[in-house]
Amino acid sequence: MTFQEIIKLHPQPTRVDHDTLLRCIDECLDCAASCTACADASLSEPDVHEMVRVVRLCLDCADVCEATGRIVTRQTAPDLRFMRTVIEACATACVVCADECDLHAAHHEHCRVCAEVCRRCKGACDDLLAAIG
Amino acid sequence: MTFQEIIKLHPQPTRVDHDTLLRCIDECLDCAASCTACADASLSEPDVHEMVRVVRLCLDCADVCEATGRIVTRQTAPDLRFMRTVIEACATACVVCADECDLHAAHHEHCRVCAEVCRRCKGACDDLLAAIG
Amino acid sequence: MTFQEIIKLHPQPTRVDHDTLLRCIDECLDCAASCTACADASLSEPDVHEMVRVVRLCLDCADVCEATGRIVTRQTAPDLRFMRTVIEACATACVVCADECDLHAAHHEHCRVCAEVCRRCKGACDDLLAAIG
Amino acid sequence: MTFQEIIKLHPQPTRVDHDTLLRCIDECLDCAASCTACADASLSEPDVHEMVRVVRLCLDCADVCEATGRIVTRQTAPDLRFMRTVIEACATACVVCADECDLHAAHHEHCRVCAEVCRRCKGACDDLLAAIG
Repeated sequence: MTFQEIIKLHPQPTRVDHDTLLRCIDECLDCAASCTACADASLSEPDVHEMVRVVRLCLDCADVCEATGRIVTRQTAPDLRFMRTVIEACATACVVCADECDLHAAHHEHCRVCAEVCRRCKGACDDLLAAIG
Repeated sequence: MTFQEIIKLHPQPTRVDHDTLLRCIDECLDCAASCTACADASLSEPDVHEMVRVVRLCLDCADVCEATGRIVTRQTAPDLRFMRTVIEACATACVVCADECDLHAAHHEHCRVCAEVCRRCKGACDDLLAAIG
Repeated sequence: MTFQEIIKLHPQPTRVDHDTLLRCIDECLDCAASCTACADASLSEPDVHEMVRVVRLCLDCADVCEATGRIVTRQTAPDLRFMRTVIEACATACVVCADECDLHAAHHEHCRVCAEVCRRCKGACDDLLAAIG
Repeated sequence: MTFQEIIKLHPQPTRVDHDTLLRCIDECLDCAASCTACADASLSEPDVHEMVRVVRLCLDCADVCEATGRIVTRQTAPDLRFMRTVIEACATACVVCADECDLHAAHHEHCRVCAEVCRRCKGACDDLLAAIG
């Protein structure tokens, strides 16, 4: 996506490895959009009363992925201590949401795909945490 | 991105043309992330006092693109009248932001790229408005 | 709330009537939080399958109120044309959400209260539109 | 604010102490709006080049407070492990932002007030963490 080009043009880039950073932002955006879409698809399922916890955790995961994506995008005068806590919260949201989606993966394909995106985002968060040190 | 796969798996999809819908969501996400990145890059420029209006309009554009992306993603029981007003607001934000970024495109490459993304998002919003009817 | 104090301390305030502005921001925040809470309460109701449209429209309304609240808060170099379109989208979201909540007001008190907040926010948006001119 | 009434009407409320929960949500909303307003006021200051880090951290703090406010509002099927990580990230954002605002409190009143709101929100987050256990 084009936003990655803009991040590369920052006049005072952070020293964090750029590929790791860009992949984490990309996964946060995809995970946020995927969770918004999975919450909405779950809401339209005939067995919506079974999907209540999926909807709730997908909404949470979308909120924290979106905030994390924005925060990690900013390279101006970062505070690494804070950045670590928000990436950790994001990774936790992804695991919790993936675990719940997995329970419905057999009968709802959107949950199966959403769980995959969440775990990929979790991995990208972990890699960024390692790169920040 | 994977979120598009999830949208296609919605149990009760809207009748709106899927390609037009998916392209609009994609552009809203890219525009939101690009504006967040351009506001941040502008803030780090030595001539930041000249960039104040860019920062402000990029923040606005990011906020409205993000909200629009979420709202357009949802296919459950949509209200088309409301959807039109929010897509129109998004298209306006994109034009206003692109016009301001253009003023700085000659000396700040990130503004040149950001203006392009904004205009592409504006076009995708217009196409979705036409598809909704 | 304290944020109103900070808005009053802006070094270059807009000429828009301050009371109207502050009331609109206040109502947007309350409406966003109310819709988040009503979507969540509706999700936990035994008749959740009847509440699907409430949940969806409350999520939309929360998203647009939050974005509008942020955008209207900013007084630096505003673009009034864009500001009008986003306030109009917000007012429309509030009406659409209030109408749906009204349908469930008799059996779900949280929907009755949420409809009230939405209509109050709609009124504050209309007043701000009139003040902007 | 009215949203608190709606939270009290949730059909399956969490066991977390309600006063502590409501105060945390209230402070998150006020802190998010205050940080949005302080970032914007700082951007309009004649010494904006000195305010760059304030703007950045206020934007971060607004993003995480807004996400935390939404997540903590939801009482349906909560995941306490995740909730703790996001409240901790929020508390950290508040401290980091308050420390930076304090550096400008002597010459910019909006920074002095914003630092106060951030510290109050930090306290409310800590109290909620203690209540969750």
